[in-house]
Amino acid sequence: MKRLPLGPLYYEYSRQVEPRLRIEPGETVVVETEDAFSGQIRTNDDRRDRTKMPYSNPQTGPIWISGAEPGDALAVKIESITPTIGQCVTRTSDPNQLAQWLGDDCPHGTHVCPISDGQIHWSDKLTIPYAPMLGCIGTAPSWGAPTTLPAGPHGGNMDIVEVCPGNTIYLPVYVPGGYLYLGDAHSAMGHGELSASGLEMPAESVITVHVLKNKRQSGPRIETPSEIVTVVSGCPMERSTAQAFAQLILWMEQDFGWNRWRAYDLLTHVAQLSIGYYGIGTVGAKVAKRYLNQPS
Amino acid sequence: MKRLPLGPLYYEYSRQVEPRLRIEPGETVVVETEDAFSGQIRTNDDRRDRTKMPYSNPQTGPIWISGAEPGDALAVKIESITPTIGQCVTRTSDPNQLAQWLGDDCPHGTHVCPISDGQIHWSDKLTIPYAPMLGCIGTAPSWGAPTTLPAGPHGGNMDIVEVCPGNTIYLPVYVPGGYLYLGDAHSAMGHGELSASGLEMPAESVITVHVLKNKRQSGPRIETPSEIVTVVSGCPMERSTAQAFAQLILWMEQDFGWNRWRAYDLLTHVAQLSIGYYGIGTVGAKVAKRYLNQPS
Amino acid sequence: MKRLPLGPLYYEYSRQVEPRLRIEPGETVVVETEDAFSGQIRTNDDRRDRTKMPYSNPQTGPIWISGAEPGDALAVKIESITPTIGQCVTRTSDPNQLAQWLGDDCPHGTHVCPISDGQIHWSDKLTIPYAPMLGCIGTAPSWGAPTTLPAGPHGGNMDIVEVCPGNTIYLPVYVPGGYLYLGDAHSAMGHGELSASGLEMPAESVITVHVLKNKRQSGPRIETPSEIVTVVSGCPMERSTAQAFAQLILWMEQDFGWNRWRAYDLLTHVAQLSIGYYGIGTVGAKVAKRYLNQPS
Amino acid sequence: MKRLPLGPLYYEYSRQVEPRLRIEPGETVVVETEDAFSGQIRTNDDRRDRTKMPYSNPQTGPIWISGAEPGDALAVKIESITPTIGQCVTRTSDPNQLAQWLGDDCPHGTHVCPISDGQIHWSDKLTIPYAPMLGCIGTAPSWGAPTTLPAGPHGGNMDIVEVCPGNTIYLPVYVPGGYLYLGDAHSAMGHGELSASGLEMPAESVITVHVLKNKRQSGPRIETPSEIVTVVSGCPMERSTAQAFAQLILWMEQDFGWNRWRAYDLLTHVAQLSIGYYGIGTVGAKVAKRYLNQPS
Repeated sequence: MKRLPLGPLYYEYSRQVEPRLRIEPGETVVVETEDAFSGQIRTNDDRRDRTKMPYSNPQTGPIWISGAEPGDALAVKIESITPTIGQCVTRTSDPNQLAQWLGDDCPHGTHVCPISDGQIHWSDKLTIPYAPMLGCIGTAPSWGAPTTLPAGPHGGNMDIVEVCPGNTIYLPVYVPGGYLYLGDAHSAMGHGELSASGLEMPAESVITVHVLKNKRQSGPRIETPSEIVTVVSGCPMERSTAQAFAQLILWMEQDFGWNRWRAYDLLTHVAQLSIGYYGIGTVGAKVAKRYLNQPS
Repeated sequence: MKRLPLGPLYYEYSRQVEPRLRIEPGETVVVETEDAFSGQIRTNDDRRDRTKMPYSNPQTGPIWISGAEPGDALAVKIESITPTIGQCVTRTSDPNQLAQWLGDDCPHGTHVCPISDGQIHWSDKLTIPYAPMLGCIGTAPSWGAPTTLPAGPHGGNMDIVEVCPGNTIYLPVYVPGGYLYLGDAHSAMGHGELSASGLEMPAESVITVHVLKNKRQSGPRIETPSEIVTVVSGCPMERSTAQAFAQLILWMEQDFGWNRWRAYDLLTHVAQLSIGYYGIGTVGAKVAKRYLNQPS
Repeated sequence: MKRLPLGPLYYEYSRQVEPRLRIEPGETVVVETEDAFSGQIRTNDDRRDRTKMPYSNPQTGPIWISGAEPGDALAVKIESITPTIGQCVTRTSDPNQLAQWLGDDCPHGTHVCPISDGQIHWSDKLTIPYAPMLGCIGTAPSWGAPTTLPAGPHGGNMDIVEVCPGNTIYLPVYVPGGYLYLGDAHSAMGHGELSASGLEMPAESVITVHVLKNKRQSGPRIETPSEIVTVVSGCPMERSTAQAFAQLILWMEQDFGWNRWRAYDLLTHVAQLSIGYYGIGTVGAKVAKRYLNQPS
Repeated sequence: MKRLPLGPLYYEYSRQVEPRLRIEPGETVVVETEDAFSGQIRTNDDRRDRTKMPYSNPQTGPIWISGAEPGDALAVKIESITPTIGQCVTRTSDPNQLAQWLGDDCPHGTHVCPISDGQIHWSDKLTIPYAPMLGCIGTAPSWGAPTTLPAGPHGGNMDIVEVCPGNTIYLPVYVPGGYLYLGDAHSAMGHGELSASGLEMPAESVITVHVLKNKRQSGPRIETPSEIVTVVSGCPMERSTAQAFAQLILWMEQDFGWNRWRAYDLLTHVAQLSIGYYGIGTVGAKVAKRYLNQPS
């Protein structure tokens, strides 16, 4: 099994750097990623030093997948995500939009949480079940080089809990080779990512990558053992919600034989929404697979 | 057990009509409600007739609760919700915000679904598990009389799935007696209520109402067996999401001894969001009770 | 000329109170209005006392206009707005959404500004030209009783600068008699009404009211000497902007013979937007009259 | 006077291409730009051919300004904007968010408009005064390479009418040399850019560029003969409006000696808002210079 070790940290989904690893479709690889703070915080006394690294969410990559061409899609199965130093760290700073209700005196601090026995030790008294996910995964667009802050049709900083072991992430390919990047592993994450800072950890992810030829997607899709999910980012969330629903309906139409207006009717009653970082309006619209094969 | 039968249908949360039922705190009552279409659609051939009734979501009420005064809260435990005619109905019309992606040729139609054996028979082939909820529940404000379309601090048309049997809804009291209204039962509902029309049914709800004295709330709260939830409505959803989180933090501070900034940090990692009708930006922010008694 | 003096102050657009004045179409009347703070602040030492009056923007009315029926529109020409006590007052409190950038230590204060010689004396050094407008004008809906905080199809707290002398405000009629209310005069106002508090003054407005029979409008419209304007309120502002443009296009189609898609093209190049209180997303879309009579 | 002729068209604000022109601070240069459609539409029969060029808004540049360093600002005075082929062109396609009110049958078409005698000949009957502006102007960020669709702290596709002759645009410098790009000239433009397509023209702009050392800005600023303007892009517009106001207040504090809360109070009464392309939430907050030198 190939391994892509930590190396240069990238903060953009750029088509203009040299691929660090080249794989064949169907290969399984291990990818090491640094945490969202670029490793600046390893103890409670450490702080973000923006003079040394002003950006967040370093990515490992890009990975070149043989045969991936514009108009294809990558299918990235996440096999596992493992912490590499047995801990994660989070950080509080300004409460941003919550300042109007809570005040602006949130103490700026960092907070290391050991991970053991399937639990994240958030405090002496409180543990959170280990439920890892990747905040960022994406391909390089042919137009522009998005930073690791927003999300978009290429994926990016989606911060949605469904990017986790057992699930497959489908991403559009915009340039030959696909240029796959990943990073920003969290040991657990809530909906909305309230403070914009997760339980950030350096991690080792095992992924298997396939190429779906001529599978044009307008944005990221996710398949879980029991659901399919479309992901749209962007504010206002009313718009990304509407668009994520529309893409889910079109997916049901194209791949599962549904009439679009019947799907529209059904989803009103059975769809679920999963919200990523609310500040960038990431919305996942989901439907259980059990409904898919019963077009009506 | 007292029963409040169908009677005049109200389409406003008004303090200016005569209470139809007066109860003592702690009483359990049965409340009959008409469906969201005011009963106009009982067969697939029926259509909404807006010339006869232009409004939606008729309410049964108001119920006067003895001793409820401004500054108190009502605790409304929903014991059960039962369909009264063994069926529900839904309706498609214009796709509104989705027209830009799906076109505007959605057939306008109605669709009756029998309910039996715990299943909603949406089509010959596809059933949806019966999981009833109330789209609307609210008290009368002292300022203004909201219609049954929006939601707000008084409750109203929240369309959030947590208003269901087994849960308790806490609502602010603004006028003596509280003036509780409910209606708009759905036999099941997805997040977001995509088409703005649920699986609407006339129903019979059993509720138990207590008064919490001097319990000033800034909006609706819900308690499930395993979670507490704050609900905020209004667009853009980024704002209602932030506000729902802020209210959840303040609830943790006031009732569970949490430091607000520790709660802010925790919720980033463990909160869940439940989205009601996305067109009016209803957002529920939730945290599992298992975390509440471990302030840190 | 009839005069409607100050009397009971109303804080809702309600169809359920007794009209205080009945007029014929075409009549000109003088209407006295209290300021947005219900007259609680007359000196720099006064403060808002919400225990005595928790609501804002008291209205004078309702005025019954003979012959106004649902489906008609009122045309309210504003002839003049005059301060009644030679001063206005403003007030700062929490900076709300700006707290995240500016902090939350805005001093809570009131600030009386004399008005003389066509100038508002905001400070010893700085004067603002007197340019009065009405923050609120509206009719009573048939469904619900909106408070004087939001705006909507009935008008209400639009806080848009075009509601000023020389202009005509067109409002939908929902109930017999129309039930016209007005209040919340400002001696001047910027776009957006940043702090949500204007230069509030008790005032005397002279208005002339006509009835346009069978003139169904989906919301407020304004005619200035040189422009026509549609007004839509509601967040997110992207949606109210789109909707205001759509209503302007439909107005051009219905009354001026424009093809809707030609109007759509034209407005891209020549439309103007006027923003009311940004917190409730009030947007006015405008086009110069000189373009209207050249449909193409 | 140096001239930067048309050359390679760039569709990103990238720091990774070779500067095409190097100038000294204070130099005046002529910059030729292609139209937003990359010159694909010169007659009414031409159509956008996205197979040949899928992107919009080509830029000319980058221009290297000697001595510009991160933390500085560029001051770009626009001296003039002149059409190079005596015409502009616009284009209608899908009505996007307006489809829900207007339907989705907008004819897809192009429309050439001759420019002469200070008028744009939009149709046989209707002319629009020539009032040119640049839809895009910006510097290259150090993090990411934005496309020419969004706008941001670096400038970009702001589509705001104040980027016009006589005004000075202040832009942050993120990388040595600044890397200034411009393009997307319009012969006139309304607020909101309803259809997302302006009156697009190839043009020749004369600009004078100065460097303001150690002038850290959080985003674009504009100075007109009578006003100062801050520009913020991003949805929802409520948020960009609030942020633009906050930046205007901070500018008044830093450069004009205002107390921030006095400025906050003043702007409520006298600020103006100028809306760029509403789909990306570009908002300019403005205050008249006559108020600036009277801090109070």
